[in-house]
Amino acid sequence: MHGQSLVIADVRLTPVLVADPPLLNTQGVHQPYTPRLIVEVVTAGGVVGIGETYGDSKYLELARPLAGRLVGREVSDLNGLFTLADDVSVDAARVDASVDVGGLRGVQTADKLRLSVVSGFEVACLDALGKALGLPVHALLGGKVREAVEYSAYLFYKWDGHPSGVASEKDDGWGAALDPAGIVAQARLFTERYGFTSFKLKGGVFPPEEEVAAIRALAEAFPGLPLRLDPNGAWSVETSLKVAAELGDVLEYLEDPALGTPAMAQVAAGTRVPLATNMCVTTFEEIPEAFANGAVQVVLSDHHYWGGLRRTRELAAVCRTFGVSVSMHSNTHLGISLAAMTHVAATVPGLHHACDSHYPWQAEDILTSRLRFTDGKVAVTDTPGLGVALDRDKLAALHARWLDDDFRALRERDDAAAMRAADPDWTTPAVPRW
Amino acid sequence: MHGQSLVIADVRLTPVLVADPPLLNTQGVHQPYTPRLIVEVVTAGGVVGIGETYGDSKYLELARPLAGRLVGREVSDLNGLFTLADDVSVDAARVDASVDVGGLRGVQTADKLRLSVVSGFEVACLDALGKALGLPVHALLGGKVREAVEYSAYLFYKWDGHPSGVASEKDDGWGAALDPAGIVAQARLFTERYGFTSFKLKGGVFPPEEEVAAIRALAEAFPGLPLRLDPNGAWSVETSLKVAAELGDVLEYLEDPALGTPAMAQVAAGTRVPLATNMCVTTFEEIPEAFANGAVQVVLSDHHYWGGLRRTRELAAVCRTFGVSVSMHSNTHLGISLAAMTHVAATVPGLHHACDSHYPWQAEDILTSRLRFTDGKVAVTDTPGLGVALDRDKLAALHARWLDDDFRALRERDDAAAMRAADPDWTTPAVPRW
Repeated sequence: MHGQSLVIADVRLTPVLVADPPLLNTQGVHQPYTPRLIVEVVTAGGVVGIGETYGDSKYLELARPLAGRLVGREVSDLNGLFTLADDVSVDAARVDASVDVGGLRGVQTADKLRLSVVSGFEVACLDALGKALGLPVHALLGGKVREAVEYSAYLFYKWDGHPSGVASEKDDGWGAALDPAGIVAQARLFTERYGFTSFKLKGGVFPPEEEVAAIRALAEAFPGLPLRLDPNGAWSVETSLKVAAELGDVLEYLEDPALGTPAMAQVAAGTRVPLATNMCVTTFEEIPEAFANGAVQVVLSDHHYWGGLRRTRELAAVCRTFGVSVSMHSNTHLGISLAAMTHVAATVPGLHHACDSHYPWQAEDILTSRLRFTDGKVAVTDTPGLGVALDRDKLAALHARWLDDDFRALRERDDAAAMRAADPDWTTPAVPRW
Repeated sequence: MHGQSLVIADVRLTPVLVADPPLLNTQGVHQPYTPRLIVEVVTAGGVVGIGETYGDSKYLELARPLAGRLVGREVSDLNGLFTLADDVSVDAARVDASVDVGGLRGVQTADKLRLSVVSGFEVACLDALGKALGLPVHALLGGKVREAVEYSAYLFYKWDGHPSGVASEKDDGWGAALDPAGIVAQARLFTERYGFTSFKLKGGVFPPEEEVAAIRALAEAFPGLPLRLDPNGAWSVETSLKVAAELGDVLEYLEDPALGTPAMAQVAAGTRVPLATNMCVTTFEEIPEAFANGAVQVVLSDHHYWGGLRRTRELAAVCRTFGVSVSMHSNTHLGISLAAMTHVAATVPGLHHACDSHYPWQAEDILTSRLRFTDGKVAVTDTPGLGVALDRDKLAALHARWLDDDFRALRERDDAAAMRAADPDWTTPAVPRW
């Protein structure tokens, strides 16, 4: 018997702004700081569980009433979180039914927003439950089936600093990468620092032939290692098929070459290169059409928007049933989420592709000790809960930045707005861009 | 911290023979005694978890080596059970790739056999884990979303006693039911004793017009209550459509009218009566074809052959994703399995059909206290683990029967063999029978 009350006595929400390098994508560039929300769930027994999710104000507005309703419930009541979230009204006016500029995560819906918020609470509840019971989170998900989780090096075209001239960001230690040589140099840094043995290039930034050249350069520099290219839906079906034909011998998969399930299905029908997605299949509702049409061969789950770690396992079960692979998507995140990703990935059988993570790009974290990549992998901890601890001074500093009026504009992530600091005429490109 | 070792120190397997009334189905009749296997998992901390599954010797032969391999592992290592079972070789020669005569559970495969065995261990591990942590099994599955689980009255054509003349079985308290009046009388007993408010008739026993008449009689006796008819695939597509047309106004669903996904898809295409199945969709592998063809609208899960409670939740997630309903199938079982069914059903959102259970037909149980149906429902307990306890005297008595040479022939359930006690010329009917 655990002998501790699992009842939630308090929930703390702490929005933060996290330093982010000038990483380029098809819609613009990462802001100097990205909003994240840190969730703490405190049990009557005094256990604190932590979670993390998106931090833009539309998430905060939903998280606050949900936090209030959690008090008095048990941290083990995870199925109930979804019912509870359904009951919290969403300000529909804030949910714009178009592509999410900031997140590059497919069509935004009220439901997806709700699930993203729930995931922060779900992870915090699992962390608290694990700590109270003396079990690691992976054990609460049925136990690990591997001792370490493999991640890929997430390569980005980038500038050497933010155009807005934020001083601390001018030298982020990575330098610029704007051509094949720059990408190969960045990949070498990744292998030296973390031991990664697979590479993903965020594309959709330069014309396809330049990105094809970058992948070719990677293939020459790292012969035989798995390579991926992700233009975030920036290409036409024709361009996608051309790239697939040119890189078919070296690509592990092509990620979201074209936008939407019908276009992806057309690409899939014309190439033997597997297609991965975190844009056309981002909810359970989108699965039947995509699977029926053979539009995707690898679903890149993201526990934030699929609704947490248990829903991620359910997604994996759905994919396994239909012979579709799974791996893991990542957006800018901190160590709580990396720990959560590692716990759930450790429990999913048949994970044949290294997961994505932005974590190496985040020089700042709110943990007492950063998670480490060794040989490209994060070891699965058996420490109770997630196995990570908040550094309250660091959390306070990042929250102070969020509170600072000078940074108020950055509370909403907007990659196009960030790009306009360098190019005042920039607008989000129409797709297909090429 | 639970402060107890979750390591498995011992596993006990106890095969039993359970009294079963002479319930008729399309392949024959239930034997006077049905084999079941009781699994006990004992932790180093002294906690005993219990599970239950099929007990024919092909299950026992697989359960014994699996039991040996469990020792030294943790009861929380539930994902690992499947890998472990894969490693235990199946005597393929014993697995006959045809319809399982005893179980009426679709095509039998080595994989399904393995999963049925795993389920007994999985439930025992969950029971032990819950007891060790002080949590009910439903909390280990994410928490209940309802306080009670609804079951249907499972009506059978039956004789008043077994033809073999087993004395204790001559008067089972239910009497014969061989015509519409008999079925209505049986249904009244079910409502009086347990308060059920929905009814399922096991059909495929008499010509369809007689079973249609029985359903009509039930509709008149219990106006407005949900009715189901399940001939276990005994009908042709044409007969299925004729029955669907005749009973469309009163049927909640028609269960496995015809055998196999192609035939079910043809029936589904010709009627608006929903089709349920526990025969053409019995494994994850069978799902894609059935869903693509719209062959089934309700999957009746059975945690025994889907591989346990966590796999049952995964099945529910797959079904939810594709807009297919779930409910629960039952074969002859004892109270451990009813408790397990109730815990998992309590956690599944959107359960819109009452679950099936044979439990009222089992006068014998191996629990200190039988589970109760009140208003047709079993209350979801918050007692740690499954919330049921073994009565060792009862278990010993049912095991002694299994050991008794006089009952050796009944260690393998064979409904056709049981029928030959009354009709020496009986052979399993070819399908479609009508």
